[in-house]
Amino acid sequence: MAKSDDPDVFSAALVIIGNEILAGRTQDTNTPWIAERLTAHGILLNEVRIIPDEEPEIIHAVRSLYPKYDYVFTTGGIGPTHDDITADCVAKAFDAQLVRNEEAFRMLEEHYGLEELTPPRAKMCMIPAGASLIPNPVTAAPGFIMENVHVMAGVPRIMQAMLDHVLGMIKAGKPILSNTVACSLPESAVAEDVTALQETYAEIQIGSYPHYRGGVLGLSLVLRGTDKDRLEAATAELLEIIRKHGDEPRALSIRTVDS
Amino acid sequence: MAKSDDPDVFSAALVIIGNEILAGRTQDTNTPWIAERLTAHGILLNEVRIIPDEEPEIIHAVRSLYPKYDYVFTTGGIGPTHDDITADCVAKAFDAQLVRNEEAFRMLEEHYGLEELTPPRAKMCMIPAGASLIPNPVTAAPGFIMENVHVMAGVPRIMQAMLDHVLGMIKAGKPILSNTVACSLPESAVAEDVTALQETYAEIQIGSYPHYRGGVLGLSLVLRGTDKDRLEAATAELLEIIRKHGDEPRALSIRTVDS
Repeated sequence: MAKSDDPDVFSAALVIIGNEILAGRTQDTNTPWIAERLTAHGILLNEVRIIPDEEPEIIHAVRSLYPKYDYVFTTGGIGPTHDDITADCVAKAFDAQLVRNEEAFRMLEEHYGLEELTPPRAKMCMIPAGASLIPNPVTAAPGFIMENVHVMAGVPRIMQAMLDHVLGMIKAGKPILSNTVACSLPESAVAEDVTALQETYAEIQIGSYPHYRGGVLGLSLVLRGTDKDRLEAATAELLEIIRKHGDEPRALSIRTVDS
Repeated sequence: MAKSDDPDVFSAALVIIGNEILAGRTQDTNTPWIAERLTAHGILLNEVRIIPDEEPEIIHAVRSLYPKYDYVFTTGGIGPTHDDITADCVAKAFDAQLVRNEEAFRMLEEHYGLEELTPPRAKMCMIPAGASLIPNPVTAAPGFIMENVHVMAGVPRIMQAMLDHVLGMIKAGKPILSNTVACSLPESAVAEDVTALQETYAEIQIGSYPHYRGGVLGLSLVLRGTDKDRLEAATAELLEIIRKHGDEPRALSIRTVDS
């Protein structure tokens, strides 16, 4: 999905900037957190890119994604060190100047005091011209919004506060509801019936996810959509499909995620 | 980094195909596993894209990435259900036909028996013409290699077996070594010295990663490179920088990751 064709659902991309995830040493916990939060606000996360803190890569990702989706979110690279180049790259992606933002300067001055506002810290008030700020309640250095691109910190606690601030301001869609049905059938056993079910319920997205637990293959079928009645009807039919193939849906969690 | 300019290090991109990660319900454990495995083989993971199982998105990702990197790896979407469209999309990305692969058919026939080789299962022997297979020791349905694109299953246990098979065959680089130095200084305190250190050791990649643990900001500095002597020299200088700023590097793990 590109920019919203459905007025009830908005689309988004997430850009995770930094080498630590790509090196395999750090588990990316920001993606699932952001994905869940966006989903609850009727914003569908359509794409995630994890890229290194290299100028051409950041500029390319921003330029590719911001025209395509309603919202773009980035995390990482807005601190005081040599590898924190996100603000500079976002400015370049929009052919904007990187300027000292007086509001950001005041935020940092208030937090650190003017004497402790060393050059590395002062770097954090350099923001693309025309951007508005996202406050940082933890370490003062703000994120910012440039057109539809929301630039946030990478440290989870700070990013979470920034995203909650942003989600309080931007236009939300209808919450995306979700049901999960688990069984122990092989995926291929239900494949044809699930394909037919998907055709009947075009507005419900049905995903089929096989998994291994304790050496046994299991299957989770996930139904998602904004129409609660249709979601429940599709779930009921899916339960019948599984029973027809001789299995009783186990670990059934027909919880409707709307928060 | 694009295609290898350094003969000792190869570049790679990873494409995670499937809605489950984007919905936030599933933690992506494949990325850190693949990143570590590639790093140990001298293959630098330069980019990860997480995309939905939608044809235009998969085709676009493959076409964007395969000319840019030495290797591309994909996970997910090669099973028997309606949302398993990776093989078809990779074929389209290369303007190739999707054909019944006789070797794949024999693998599936041997695993399931001809009578149990239902149409959904038989779908898994449809492979782009010209591709070579990646064996699947768990459920028989193979992955495949099309030019430099390595198409693997999404289920971690199967993906891991497939990647190990591939890594036994493809050209490896020099192992990328890594040291981590942790301290409790704020990032801004060491920023200028670390910038100077990075300039001195251009061939060592130095990353600076602040984090919160128990309400306290801490800092991990990660040094990576293929030259062990230079890596150790840069680490020694970094330790001096931290001591100069009045902190003793805590939880120091100067382990050299080479396996």
